[in-house]
Formats: sequence, C-alpha cells, structure tokens
Amino acid sequence: MNAAIIGASGYTGLELVKILLSHPKFTITYIGTSKGNESLTSLHPSLLHVSEARVEKTDPKEVAKCADIAFLALPHKTAMGYTKELLSLGVKVVDLSADYRIQKERYEEFYCLHEDEKNLTHAVYGLPELNRKSIKKATLTANPGCYPTASLLALLPFAKYVKKDTPIFIDAKSGVSGAGKKLSDSSHFVSINDNIHAYNPLIHRHAPEIKEKFDKVSEGDFEVNFVPHLIPITRGMLVSVYIQIQDKIDALKMVEKFYADEYFVRVRKKPVSVKDVAGTHFCDLFVTQNKNSIFISSAIDNLLRGASSQAVANANLMCGFDENLGLPILSYAP
Amino acid sequence: MNAAIIGASGYTGLELVKILLSHPKFTITYIGTSKGNESLTSLHPSLLHVSEARVEKTDPKEVAKCADIAFLALPHKTAMGYTKELLSLGVKVVDLSADYRIQKERYEEFYCLHEDEKNLTHAVYGLPELNRKSIKKATLTANPGCYPTASLLALLPFAKYVKKDTPIFIDAKSGVSGAGKKLSDSSHFVSINDNIHAYNPLIHRHAPEIKEKFDKVSEGDFEVNFVPHLIPITRGMLVSVYIQIQDKIDALKMVEKFYADEYFVRVRKKPVSVKDVAGTHFCDLFVTQNKNSIFISSAIDNLLRGASSQAVANANLMCGFDENLGLPILSYAP
Amino acid sequence: MNAAIIGASGYTGLELVKILLSHPKFTITYIGTSKGNESLTSLHPSLLHVSEARVEKTDPKEVAKCADIAFLALPHKTAMGYTKELLSLGVKVVDLSADYRIQKERYEEFYCLHEDEKNLTHAVYGLPELNRKSIKKATLTANPGCYPTASLLALLPFAKYVKKDTPIFIDAKSGVSGAGKKLSDSSHFVSINDNIHAYNPLIHRHAPEIKEKFDKVSEGDFEVNFVPHLIPITRGMLVSVYIQIQDKIDALKMVEKFYADEYFVRVRKKPVSVKDVAGTHFCDLFVTQNKNSIFISSAIDNLLRGASSQAVANANLMCGFDENLGLPILSYAP
Amino acid sequence: MNAAIIGASGYTGLELVKILLSHPKFTITYIGTSKGNESLTSLHPSLLHVSEARVEKTDPKEVAKCADIAFLALPHKTAMGYTKELLSLGVKVVDLSADYRIQKERYEEFYCLHEDEKNLTHAVYGLPELNRKSIKKATLTANPGCYPTASLLALLPFAKYVKKDTPIFIDAKSGVSGAGKKLSDSSHFVSINDNIHAYNPLIHRHAPEIKEKFDKVSEGDFEVNFVPHLIPITRGMLVSVYIQIQDKIDALKMVEKFYADEYFVRVRKKPVSVKDVAGTHFCDLFVTQNKNSIFISSAIDNLLRGASSQAVANANLMCGFDENLGLPILSYAP
Repeated sequence: MNAAIIGASGYTGLELVKILLSHPKFTITYIGTSKGNESLTSLHPSLLHVSEARVEKTDPKEVAKCADIAFLALPHKTAMGYTKELLSLGVKVVDLSADYRIQKERYEEFYCLHEDEKNLTHAVYGLPELNRKSIKKATLTANPGCYPTASLLALLPFAKYVKKDTPIFIDAKSGVSGAGKKLSDSSHFVSINDNIHAYNPLIHRHAPEIKEKFDKVSEGDFEVNFVPHLIPITRGMLVSVYIQIQDKIDALKMVEKFYADEYFVRVRKKPVSVKDVAGTHFCDLFVTQNKNSIFISSAIDNLLRGASSQAVANANLMCGFDENLGLPILSYAP
Repeated sequence: MNAAIIGASGYTGLELVKILLSHPKFTITYIGTSKGNESLTSLHPSLLHVSEARVEKTDPKEVAKCADIAFLALPHKTAMGYTKELLSLGVKVVDLSADYRIQKERYEEFYCLHEDEKNLTHAVYGLPELNRKSIKKATLTANPGCYPTASLLALLPFAKYVKKDTPIFIDAKSGVSGAGKKLSDSSHFVSINDNIHAYNPLIHRHAPEIKEKFDKVSEGDFEVNFVPHLIPITRGMLVSVYIQIQDKIDALKMVEKFYADEYFVRVRKKPVSVKDVAGTHFCDLFVTQNKNSIFISSAIDNLLRGASSQAVANANLMCGFDENLGLPILSYAP
Repeated sequence: MNAAIIGASGYTGLELVKILLSHPKFTITYIGTSKGNESLTSLHPSLLHVSEARVEKTDPKEVAKCADIAFLALPHKTAMGYTKELLSLGVKVVDLSADYRIQKERYEEFYCLHEDEKNLTHAVYGLPELNRKSIKKATLTANPGCYPTASLLALLPFAKYVKKDTPIFIDAKSGVSGAGKKLSDSSHFVSINDNIHAYNPLIHRHAPEIKEKFDKVSEGDFEVNFVPHLIPITRGMLVSVYIQIQDKIDALKMVEKFYADEYFVRVRKKPVSVKDVAGTHFCDLFVTQNKNSIFISSAIDNLLRGASSQAVANANLMCGFDENLGLPILSYAP
Repeated sequence: MNAAIIGASGYTGLELVKILLSHPKFTITYIGTSKGNESLTSLHPSLLHVSEARVEKTDPKEVAKCADIAFLALPHKTAMGYTKELLSLGVKVVDLSADYRIQKERYEEFYCLHEDEKNLTHAVYGLPELNRKSIKKATLTANPGCYPTASLLALLPFAKYVKKDTPIFIDAKSGVSGAGKKLSDSSHFVSINDNIHAYNPLIHRHAPEIKEKFDKVSEGDFEVNFVPHLIPITRGMLVSVYIQIQDKIDALKMVEKFYADEYFVRVRKKPVSVKDVAGTHFCDLFVTQNKNSIFISSAIDNLLRGASSQAVANANLMCGFDENLGLPILSYAP
C-alpha cells in the first residue's frame, strides 16, 4: 500500500514518517508541505542517514498518482480542502485535524464555517475501540483529538453507569508538543519550565467533541466540564476523569472486563504514568472509587495514540490489515 | 523576639532560615537538628557568606533559655514530643507537622497514636484567613498542610453555597519539594522528569484535613475526593477544585468580594500560574463556571504559603506583630 | 536617589524592578518601555499587589525631570541613542547593553556602527572586582555581559600566570532566560527540554569582550576560544575555564587569596552549582588543577550578577553608596 | 542466536531488552538479576503487554544451557566473576562494566583489585569504529564507557594531528540516567532540576580509559583533562573536546573523510543536539576551528551508543551478523 503524508513539517508529521518508515505494509510514496522543494532531513535533522526523501509542495493530483491513502497532518480548515479533492480522486484519507470529528453545528460554533458537508456525513470517527467496524469500511476517517482520545477511553466503560444529571469533570495535563511547533509566549521555555497553569478552562474546543461522542454511546446529555493544563514535559498527557455513578459497582473490575480484549489499553493496579506510554500507542488506565464517586486516570502519548499512531491504526483497518500492524509498543522509559 | 528553628536540615527549615534572617522583628537564636554540631552552611551551601550560624543537637531546655517561640519543621510524631516539652517550658510553638492539625480520631486513623491530647485540644489551626483571631491568642499553632492551604483558600468563599450531597473533587499537582529531601524511587530525577502521575488517589491523608476544616465552616458533611499528582517542577503547587453549587451565583464576583481585604490572596482574571507565586506568600486564585459547576484554580508556593511563610505569618500574629511582616512578596519569575 | 528603568518589559527589566523596590536608597520614579501607557503588572503579572506603577512611553526629557540615574535594559544600538541624550541632560547611566563595553573597532566588527564615540571613550566597564575605583567616578557604566562576568571572575586571578602562546578554552552553559523573551525556534520549550547543544561556537560576540578585558589586565594577547551552550534551565549559568599556566602554583590558594576581601565571590572546596547562586549577586568559584592545567568552574545568576544586580552594584558605587547595598543574597535553593 | 541478559533491573538492562525484543537474529532466552523470581514487567512496568518474560536469580550454569552469548549489565567487580565462569562454560560475553576496558595497573588504581587477569589479556575494547576486526573474533568484548565512546569518536580523526605536549580538554555534560537507578542526593529531582554542576573534575575514572585508547592509536602520551557535568535531562550526553593541532588542517573535511563510510557517525554542519541522537545508536559530530585550536562537539545517547546498543553492535560482530542489525535509528525527537 502506498501512503502519502501531507503536512510533514510538524510534530505529528514527523511521527507519521517514523511509524511508516518501519511499517511492514505501507510505503511512503509522497511527502508534502505547503512550501515543498526541500529534503525531509532539513525539516527533521534527526532523520539524517535514515531517510533521503524529498518533500513536495502538496499537489493532490500528484498524490493521487502515487498513493492509495493519504494522512493529513494539517491545521483545521486547510484539511477540508485537501480531503474533498483527494477523496474525489479516489484516495482514502485519514484526517488528523478537527474538520470531520464533530457535527456541523458544533464544528461551526467552535471552529469555522464547514465547507465540505458532503464528506462530513460519512466520515467515521477514528477511535478503534469505539468504531472499529465502521472504520474498516470508511474512506474518510476523522482521527480524534488527543484529549478526547484519553478522555473517552476512560469514560467508555461507564457509558451506562454515569448518574444522569451529574456533571462530568475532566482535569487534563498535557505536554507542550500538543500545542505544535508554532511560536507563542505560552510555549517559550521560560514560560513553561517550573510552571503549570490551566488554559481555556471550561471553554476548550475538545470539550464538545468529548460530549458528542459520550452522549451518543451513553444515550445521555451530559455536562462535560473540561479543564486542560500545560505541564513542563514534551510529550504525553495524563487525564483525570471524575464521575458519579448511579449504582455501586466495582469500577476496576468493570474496566478490566471492558478492555479484556484490547491489546492497546492496559488497565493497571497502580496509578498510571505518562512515561510508561510515551513513545507507544498504549493507553494506560487506572481507576479507583470512593463509594459512587469514580476517579479514572488515563495516560497516552499525545503525538502517537493522540494523533499519529492512531492514524496508522485507522489506516490499517481501512486497508484491511491487522489493526495493530506497525504500531509502536516500546516506550521511551527510562 | 527570639526564635528557634527545630529541624533545620530540610527544605522548610531552610525557608524558615531565609525568611527569619531578613525579618524585622524576629532574631534566630537557636537552630537545631537531630544530629547537631555542624554549621548551617554545611547543611545549606547556598547560605555561605550569608549566615555563620551553628546548628545544635536539639535540646528543648536550651531552646527555652534563648527563644520565645519555636518553629518545628519536623516529621509528624517527632513534633509532638518537642511541642509538649517546649510549651511546658513557656515557649510558644508553631508546628509545621500534622500533629495538631486534626481531631484525635481522624489523626489516629491516618497517622499514628496521638501522645499529646492535652495540647491538641487548644491548638489553633493556623490558616490566617480562617482563624486570624484565634491565632493571635494561641500558644500553639498547627500550621496547615500545603494541599489543604491551597484547597481551603479555594473552597472557603463557597462554604455556604456548595450543594448538599454533591461530592467535591480536588485534583492537585505538586512540585517535588513537597515530598521532602528523603531519597525514594519516586523522587529520583529519572522518575519525575518527562513524567506525571497521581499518587495516593482518594486516600491521601490531607483529604481528611480538608474535609474537617471545610465541614466545620460550611456546617456540612461533604465527600472530599482528593487526588494529588507529582509534576516535574521543584516548588509550587496548583490545585483544581470542582464543586457544584445550589443557586446560580456569579462565582468570580463572590470570590473577589470574599477576599477583597486579603492582601495575600490575589484573585485573577486569567488562569493562575505557579510561577507567579513561587518564592512568595501569595495564593493566586482563578474561578470560572459552567452554570452551577464551578472550577477554581489555586496556586501557592508549597514551601512558603504551604509551610514556612505561613508559619511566620502565624508567629507574627501570635507575637502581636503585623501579620504580613517580613513575608516574601517577590516571586522567582521569570 | 531617584532611579529610572528604561526597558522594563524584559527579564532584566523585571529583575531591576524587584531589586530596586526593596533597595534602601533608590526610589523608582520612572519606568519606560518603547510602547508605554500600561501598568507594570500587565507586563509582569507576578507583581500584582506589589507595585501599582505605571509604565510610560520612554521620553528622556521626562526621565531627566524625575531621575538622577537611569538603568537601560535595552537592545544594543537602541541603548546608544538614549544614553547620549540622558547624559547630556545630566542623568547618570548604567547601560546593560553591549554598546559601551568594548572598543569601537571591535564593537563595529561584532555589532553595528557606533554612533556615540564621545561617550564610549569615558564609559567605564562595570565589573566592580576589576574597576571599582573608576566606577565610583563614572557617569556612564557599561554593564558587562553575563558570559564575560562569569568568565572574567574566573580568569582574573590568573592574569599574570597564564602561559603565553597557549589558548584559553571557555565552555559555557547558560539557562534560556539569557536569550531574552523574544520568540524563536531555539527558545521553544520542545527545542530546549531534554536537550543541550552549543551555539555560535568560537564566533559568539562575548568572546572579544572577554579577550579585550583579559588582555588588558594580563598585558597579553590571548587566543580566547569561547563556546556557549543552551541548557534546559531558566536562569543561571555555569562557565568552565581551561587554562595552562607557566609555573606550578597552588591554584586554589591563589584564588582564595585573590578574592579574600570580596564578599560577593565565594571560593568553594566542592564543584559549584548554579542553584546556590540563582536569585543572588554571588559568583561561586571552584578551581582544581592537573599539573599546569587549570580548570575553573564559575557559577552566576545570568539575570542578576550577569545583568541587573551588577547594574545596581554599579549604581551604588556611582552614587556613593556602599557597593553591596540592596543586592540579593538569598538563593532560590531548594 | 540465543542471548542472555544478566542484570536486567537497571536502565541499560531495560534498553537491552527493548533492542533484543525486536532484533531479527537474537532471541532472549534468559533474563537474570541478583534477586530473581519476578516478572520482567514488575521491574519495568512499561513492558506490560510487550513481554511476559520471567526473571531468574542469575545462575551461570543455567545461562550456559540456553544462551550462546550473554550481556552483562552489572556493576564492576561483580561482572568479573560472571565473565570468568560464563567464558569457561563456552558462552560469549559482552561486558558493559569497566572490568575489561583498561590495563590491569590502571584498573586497579581507579577501581579495585582485578580478579581475572587471564581474560583481561584477550578482551577486546568494543568500539566498532576502532576495533571492528578484532571484535569479530572476540569471545569477550569490553563495552566502552559512555564518556569514552563520545570522546574517542570525537578524537580519533585527530590521532595523528594533535600537537605533542599540549593538553586535551574534555568538558562533558551527561543526563542523569548515566548515574544509574541508585538513589543518592545527587540524583534527587530537587538537586538536578534548574541546576548544573561538575563532578569528579579531573579525577573521573573515565579519563584513564580515554587516555589509554587515544595514546595507543596516536602513539602519544597525552594529558587528558576530563570534567563531566550533570545536567537536568534524563538521557543523552554532549561532549566538548578542545585540542590543539600541529599543522593547519581543515578539521571539518578531515572528520568527514574519516567517517565517510561509517553509517552510525553523522558529521553535521550545525552544532549537534542530544535530542537528535536520543533513542538511537548514532553519534553526531560537529567540528569547527580557530586557527590550530579545534572544538569538536559529540552527541550520543548514553544508554544506547554509550551502553546497550553498542553492546548489541558488538554482539552482532561477534556472532557474524551485519554490525548494524537491529540497532535503533529513530530518535525520540521531538
């Protein structure tokens, strides 16, 4: 299978390159950026001696000539334009942006006007644990946000148990790579080091994504209160989910049972650590309870399970391969 | 006023030294450790050229000869023994340990047998914003824990507004200095760097302290779900408090009003940062709400407002000085 | 004495504010930036409740009306313009930029055209340990760079002992605050965290400053090979100096003797740490030797001894005060 | 080929496991620690779902039954005992300790009595770029120290050019994982974070190892002045080498030519970064010069090229495989 990576200059683009270079089935046949005409190693010096690939100024028609599937690691809005054209040229798309993740109304409230409603209607939300079957048949997968991935994997086992009319509180902590390569006061080393602070509390745009997906599977209408924080680490995120359940259940047992057959979700007896998942596709979960109040701690690598390795998992499914093929399992620990 | 510092080898001992060295009213007349017979600069090399003080093997009788008030920066249990003796010798005590913070039953459930019930009954919980008047008359102040300080300052304005029968969720993130100087796997640099994890979730012993104080002032019986995390910073802590209130109120206005006359509590319009309070006695608060769900973010320096500068504030009050005398106001930013 | 701070938006501007706010003799009567018309706390939120000062759009005539001395925390070239005007209006100047540090030819080779040769000729290089007497009489002090401060304090004791025709090697490691607040790829958190690299090796413009000052005092013409590195800390720098000496001397004894009367230089028996000097005006030195090869390790706070507290030391001398007045001595340790 | 890992509880043991798990030729058939009888995932939780291996209390006879080659990730002295026995049982050994790296006299001066002189005489120093041919025939390889690896790869191209009677200065900066998992004041997070300091300056025991190997290849007797520093990163090291050469040569061209055929040495035009090599077997080199003074900057992953991946490279050679087989090439960047 020939694969294109569009948007190769950022962190998730680099991670896509790294995964696909050692993937047993995909061959990278096209790498594009908005600028183009450079070598991959000039963008990512760590790849010197590893890849001699050239980077093109992205042209969907050229992509269609050489690739069966395209990974779009682009800002929202930009992704829509390429998706529309690539699909029309017969190229499958895994879109890592927000463009096809949520319903039109919600999208337009939190992002911008949607310019590709047609494809929005059939796009599949690419969380394998939730939509495995549909992903297999999809030509367009909307890769979930990093916060929604960690939050939903924590929440899903409780879909039928959360007490109606109680709010869900999600307190998330993310490494700085989640904000991308763009320069800003808030990603300056001096702002982040020795520091921690919340940002966009209760108004972050990943909140409606979490709510939409959880409401659907729980058949509820929950108040999702989502507060993300920036912490002085590069990659990885830890998400604390606090819920109230209706009946007294053994929360740990339930989560263990729910994920018994999921290789890439590890339910642990001790509080989970970002370090154990950094560099991998694993989501580590820990759960404990105080009567009907439940605390779930969910750890993922924001650039992998929260972006690029999840994109490859989706591509594996869309192309008829084993879902786990080529996904990273060895963490960066120590 | 002559002051003794007992337990000068740890981080809070060092901070006490630093504050008292430049305090306009207190003179350090005694510095003790369990080992003794060394120079202060051998314990804390940063004090070379600043102080030539000697450190004694702690002897309460010697303390009583030269000090009016003693700061105990000791482990729990050890503190009790010294407190009893120092009080009997007429020395006022500010105890930074947990020994006199909570009621006997609760203490014995979470710590150990209490061996000084007599003094426990009259000890005053040293959170000035809560107990200013009583502290002025106290001979023994129990300096609050760092987590309870940050949590209670966030919760106090809502004492009359939290909806009965709803749980309180507190998600706290602390710098590593909070765990002290003792060596352990979990304070090894390699364990902490690039990492974050919860510890003692829902069973940390600062939870009952928060509950006891908040129940009392709110006249309620709240379920306090407290989850602390270790983050890769040295000092400072950020505490997220999530509550549900009974009536729709303007939470920000209420907090601003509640703390209008408190110099050392700064209510901010933007999410608070640990960096702005590190090195100071300030507690910075941010509050926002989604209908009846409230998020309060509270930032303090765990070693100062969460320990040593709060101890000096208490000592100021106990000795009839202005509460704010000599407390640090210039943060370590940038 | 009334003092103005010009260029208050950066890190060194903030440090000047912090030192002068608690200085027993200086009163801040003017704070200027290029933009002006804002509050100091909007630039530096950590100063909320500490200072209610306004920030003006810098106007030298207004400065002259209210200040006896001005601290310029400005980029090179910009500083020249203000210095010329302020001096002509009778205001003493401590310039923290590079504009008056080195001779015209060298300056123009490494920076830009010099536009104030007149004042350049009488400006005094503001390293108190080197030029104390001249600084007392100066109306214009050129505050040394951070790297030259740490390097020269290490080198000065050996001025008469370095073997002619041997190169001097200086391997320096600086915290990121040294590069200022400006956004760049190289100050992005993700670039710095978990990383270290050299920059401008052998071509950094602090090299000619070190050479000029050391050549003068040693009456030599030394090859100074200077390599700075960026390390993942916010403040502080550690400078390794490697020299070869002509006779076998006891290097440690010599350094101890050289600095016997200098309060703010601490010669230590163990390798020095940035942490012990962060937050202070101290320079900590360690020296050891292998026959005629000498290693000196020099630690300072780049924003204080390498900039703002050194500026205040110079101002103290220029205004007839005790040199050490109001200089910070309590480090940020732990 | 069946491989044993002896000493699996530390950082280098974990890295060996990670490399060998995905190696195309080696199968891990034995994992031992001094304690034994535990699961690999209890030692290294990041391996949950990745390996279900058991860990044995090390018994060389059992090793010999199931393994052709053994990797010893043990403290010095302990390694000697096992090596002697394993070799006598016909098992090839790659020893990651210092026990067989240097000559007896030197070893005994810096470490302890040597108890296996017989095998010391035929052990091959396992730096492939230096000893490739001998390693292929070896039954015992002494894996170089991390500092010597980075230093020698920087120095080797200059073996014939360093000016006699000039000292070599090596200023090294290492991540904390280099000091291992053992608890000590100097690996406590609070000691390392926001800090940097030298340790064992001019007396570190990697200095004689560098000298011995460089003297041999250069046929000289050089004074090696080696100063290591601890910096607040987990893995990776950067080594600055300063030398004086006899003739004016183009140092960069020479290094490029020297390593033209070495895949795992990347000579760069810009100063090298630890981040580009972390997670890989690459050594990145940068070189620049000021007349006859040369600065070489050398970056490696201390746990991989400085330990475990170099051990696997040696094992590849000893077992007749391609040297590069299974060595990690994808860095942890970003």
